[in-house]
Amino acid sequence: MPLNITQKLIKDHLVSGEMIPGAEIGLKIDQTLTQDATGTLVMLELEAMELDRAKTEASAQYVDHNLIQVDSKNPDDHLFLQSATRRFGIHFSRPGNGVSHPVHMQRLAKPGKTLLGSDSHTCANGCMGMLAMGAGGIDVALAIAGEPFYVKMPKVWGVKLTGKLPDWVSAKDVILEMLRRHDVKGGVGRVIEYYGPGVETLNAMDRHVIANMGAELGATGTVFPSDREIKRFLKDQDRENDWMELVADKGATYDIHEEIDLSEIEPLIAKPSSPGNVVPVSEIAGTPIYQSYIGSSANPGFRDFAVAAEMVNGRHIADGISFDINPTSRQMLTDLVKESHIASLLQSGARLHQAGCNGCIGMGQAPATGRNSLRTTPRNFPGRSGTTEDSVFLCSPETAAASALTGKITDPRTLDFAYPKVKDPNKPTIDVNLLDEPLPFEEAKKVELQKGPNIASIPQMDALPDHLELPILLKMGNNISTDEILAGGARVLPYRSNLPEISKFTFEIIDDTYYKRGKETVEKGGHAIVGGFNYGQGSSREHAALAPRYIGLRVALVKDFARIHWQNLVNFGVLPLTFANEEDYDTLNQGDVLEISGLKNKIKQGNEFTINVKGKNQQIGVKHALSERQVEIMLKGGIINWVKDRQQLA
Amino acid sequence: MPLNITQKLIKDHLVSGEMIPGAEIGLKIDQTLTQDATGTLVMLELEAMELDRAKTEASAQYVDHNLIQVDSKNPDDHLFLQSATRRFGIHFSRPGNGVSHPVHMQRLAKPGKTLLGSDSHTCANGCMGMLAMGAGGIDVALAIAGEPFYVKMPKVWGVKLTGKLPDWVSAKDVILEMLRRHDVKGGVGRVIEYYGPGVETLNAMDRHVIANMGAELGATGTVFPSDREIKRFLKDQDRENDWMELVADKGATYDIHEEIDLSEIEPLIAKPSSPGNVVPVSEIAGTPIYQSYIGSSANPGFRDFAVAAEMVNGRHIADGISFDINPTSRQMLTDLVKESHIASLLQSGARLHQAGCNGCIGMGQAPATGRNSLRTTPRNFPGRSGTTEDSVFLCSPETAAASALTGKITDPRTLDFAYPKVKDPNKPTIDVNLLDEPLPFEEAKKVELQKGPNIASIPQMDALPDHLELPILLKMGNNISTDEILAGGARVLPYRSNLPEISKFTFEIIDDTYYKRGKETVEKGGHAIVGGFNYGQGSSREHAALAPRYIGLRVALVKDFARIHWQNLVNFGVLPLTFANEEDYDTLNQGDVLEISGLKNKIKQGNEFTINVKGKNQQIGVKHALSERQVEIMLKGGIINWVKDRQQLA
Repeated sequence: MPLNITQKLIKDHLVSGEMIPGAEIGLKIDQTLTQDATGTLVMLELEAMELDRAKTEASAQYVDHNLIQVDSKNPDDHLFLQSATRRFGIHFSRPGNGVSHPVHMQRLAKPGKTLLGSDSHTCANGCMGMLAMGAGGIDVALAIAGEPFYVKMPKVWGVKLTGKLPDWVSAKDVILEMLRRHDVKGGVGRVIEYYGPGVETLNAMDRHVIANMGAELGATGTVFPSDREIKRFLKDQDRENDWMELVADKGATYDIHEEIDLSEIEPLIAKPSSPGNVVPVSEIAGTPIYQSYIGSSANPGFRDFAVAAEMVNGRHIADGISFDINPTSRQMLTDLVKESHIASLLQSGARLHQAGCNGCIGMGQAPATGRNSLRTTPRNFPGRSGTTEDSVFLCSPETAAASALTGKITDPRTLDFAYPKVKDPNKPTIDVNLLDEPLPFEEAKKVELQKGPNIASIPQMDALPDHLELPILLKMGNNISTDEILAGGARVLPYRSNLPEISKFTFEIIDDTYYKRGKETVEKGGHAIVGGFNYGQGSSREHAALAPRYIGLRVALVKDFARIHWQNLVNFGVLPLTFANEEDYDTLNQGDVLEISGLKNKIKQGNEFTINVKGKNQQIGVKHALSERQVEIMLKGGIINWVKDRQQLA
Repeated sequence: MPLNITQKLIKDHLVSGEMIPGAEIGLKIDQTLTQDATGTLVMLELEAMELDRAKTEASAQYVDHNLIQVDSKNPDDHLFLQSATRRFGIHFSRPGNGVSHPVHMQRLAKPGKTLLGSDSHTCANGCMGMLAMGAGGIDVALAIAGEPFYVKMPKVWGVKLTGKLPDWVSAKDVILEMLRRHDVKGGVGRVIEYYGPGVETLNAMDRHVIANMGAELGATGTVFPSDREIKRFLKDQDRENDWMELVADKGATYDIHEEIDLSEIEPLIAKPSSPGNVVPVSEIAGTPIYQSYIGSSANPGFRDFAVAAEMVNGRHIADGISFDINPTSRQMLTDLVKESHIASLLQSGARLHQAGCNGCIGMGQAPATGRNSLRTTPRNFPGRSGTTEDSVFLCSPETAAASALTGKITDPRTLDFAYPKVKDPNKPTIDVNLLDEPLPFEEAKKVELQKGPNIASIPQMDALPDHLELPILLKMGNNISTDEILAGGARVLPYRSNLPEISKFTFEIIDDTYYKRGKETVEKGGHAIVGGFNYGQGSSREHAALAPRYIGLRVALVKDFARIHWQNLVNFGVLPLTFANEEDYDTLNQGDVLEISGLKNKIKQGNEFTINVKGKNQQIGVKHALSERQVEIMLKGGIINWVKDRQQLA
């Protein structure tokens, strides 16, 4: 049977399960990626597992999120991470090297391999003909320890690209077009596979842009073919030997079909406060802006900065505009410096920041109160910018640079100069020392972990009780993101390895009394929350499951879940339930008490059962989507307990 | 009578008083400089004074301190500052342009002029043949409003430079040599005037380095001649017409004499935690480091970065070292990019940050707990780096780069390669749009101030009571810096325009119960503090006087004061007293109550009086150094009340 690329990748890595959409499959993981915001916990998990050495082909730890050092917490973590990578045989990427996704693509990504990363944009490396997936940190820890990654077999969504992008339109507009058509949950349960003649008109980094924001569609992954362009890219990185061709078999089919004519795309923009809120730029042209921001893993290419530099070259940005340039990788920044693009940007009035995630994750570049910010970043969830009442728009570098020049949202096609055609440098800079190589095993075994005062062990979790009486502490609507469950940003992220501290920020954006009310339920058996559709969308951070669990959350009852957060809830022993009957959502209120008896048998014996609403003479039908293995994990109170038992048996 | 340069500058600007060292003189101020950490308050003061337009020849507002935008506070302030400069006819330097001192030097500084700045390193522009002085924000507000600046006539300390610096030794080592000889209060009450044949061997930016850290000697100012080198510098800035020659008259004399043979200086380093703690680098060579940091107004020159870039070119920094490059101005960063020095630094593993003050003021780049940090910044007071228990060393770019390469403190003379000779670019980049020009008056009058939610008016202060009973809430030792009185850094500075919030951090480093205890005294008439020598050294931030005043501080009784902080205390109505008999310091304890009756007459009638220690049958002789004008200010409860009254009379 002819296979598409996604099927080939899965088939090559299948450890358990059947390739039937929706069924749980186990996949061998070849490579892992961790960043610093999630990586400290991953390293503590590896320590708790008493791992001797990473069992993957390549694992890499990047420092890209927490680069702001206003006290000792972040630098202490950097040193901890470096020591842990030395201990466990992992590559280390020092602060200043740039964002994990493009750096991984440059130095380690290989066509035909699987990549699991504790960052929701890990899917970006799908541009290299990999099956690249974001997951919770604990999943990545398990993968580093050689365990398979379990995921529901996705449907494969074939998107045929035809034609060629017009002037002033670039890859970002392609993924915005996908979001315009399908919104933020259009990709749930799917791998998006791009094919067709339009693919070769996009260079490797353009494909990265499109694959990256597959996360915003909720997709399990995005896959591009490994073709001559990927060969060229790897050759530029002195890694031609890492290339292999990977294309769909002739006659391969897809579960879902889509077609995009690139030549018909126009400049698009996602309005506040969802990446799915997409309209043509022309529709809102003229809106005044405060900020224009270029960078992030959603526009990491040399051309993304170079085109902006050419546009502002010899010009000056509008009065009062903050034009923020966040270079995405050290290698690319070096090239942008060498090719004089950075000088052009600086002379136009731009602010040049350190290579890293920066404002994309609320680490700097927050906009002023109530002012409009245009960004090439992947997300504009409320408050993610760091400013509580923000107004963030997502767009291409072309639209961002045009708007910086005029001071208002501007369709770049309306500028009075020609579209600058930029090319990648003939011989891009390669830094072969960019990643520290893993130490030899004998040397690694002797390395001691360097734990700063803000790094604490993961606490013991109790097993699932058989009887629960859980007050509903919060009732929320649709599309609640992990940023709202537990914010990123400079106030919160420094406590990522200090659970008692970080849990104080749980649901703070939605209800700042939640922490206190939650803590009070811990002794009394915990509490529940209720939500709508697409609960837990966005960032993969597992603290968004671990922190509420620590302050008593035992059940999340919603209309449906975003995939990664659902998995994180399971891993940390929070029971994720959905309504059998969505209308029941309307009958529940904050303060109602959910009562479940004989829970252990109920979740073992089927995927649907009923729970009482105490004192209301009401029964609610609920469903769970746990596999047999996940039921075991849930009963033990989470995956750490489960792994411990497994290791004792081994 | 032949005059030295300092005497010429003072004579040309003398409005009141006599040029007798120690006597108060009033000086006409030609130019002012404000930065964003102090500037928001200055602008609020101008608003309170109902100023129509700046009365100086040139005033400029720089945004260089609070560049980290993790929420809306800093960007809101940037917009407020821009609106205020437009309203009052002031130049505006947008974020990303760089540190005030070198930018002012490049675009506005003029030989023969006076410059008053609300930043303690304003003295740096003394390198241009100016009388440049740091002061509290309120003094600068008064100067912008056309009021003279009052200061004690300084002694002039002539420092004759002979010889030429050897390889691997640079301007930073010259000022470290001054600090080695004279420690952090060696310059109190003095202007340091450099002269002699060694001066011409130092370029304008080298002189900036030396003048800048005159602040660390406690000097009122530092003056260099305006010679051919300054003419060259101004020509490079397209401002040749702004040049005038300013040198000492033949036969001019100095109050104090000093000589430095440049050829005998070796690489020096200030150990933690005082800039005066200077030893030869060779004495502590081999000490392991975590961080090496190049930048700040204490090493802003093209050559300071270029020499480091040449040293690391083709090499890689040691494992685990954070090598932080903080460019000091946009123009210079552009040149460093164009001349490929930034590429060399990036390829060596350096982290490139936005142009600005950054880590120098605790805004990023904080070191890891207990690790050694080498910096070219001017100060290493405890905690200033952002890390509470820090270990910061001050040194030249040569020593910093050498140590980054080896991973330990390294005398650059011991490296196995030749000293790279670097030259300034032939035609440096000029950005004539770097500073926004003041608006025409009619247009300016219509501008509305844009106040974010974190900007609050300055509260009304009460007049000085005639009877005080003040418990001593803190007894401190010598050299307490304004960083200890009210820390800088990312936690504190964002509240600089929000007095109720910022006052919560007062004396937090010394005693975190102070705020609560102080607040409790407000209703009861306030409290006192007791300190040793050089009280209030360091940063000029007036919040270090205003915040304690807000929470009840009425009297500071110490052995002696640092000049700027003393002035700030007077301005905000805190009575600064010194012990008539220093031994009395030993008899006072925290909790003792100081009792003063008939205070108004006492401070009017003389400079010395006695106060009771309540219940102890003890009398203490104290002195004040207030001029008649300052007695008036003190009686009214501070300068805002005084100015208000003056304006009503006018």
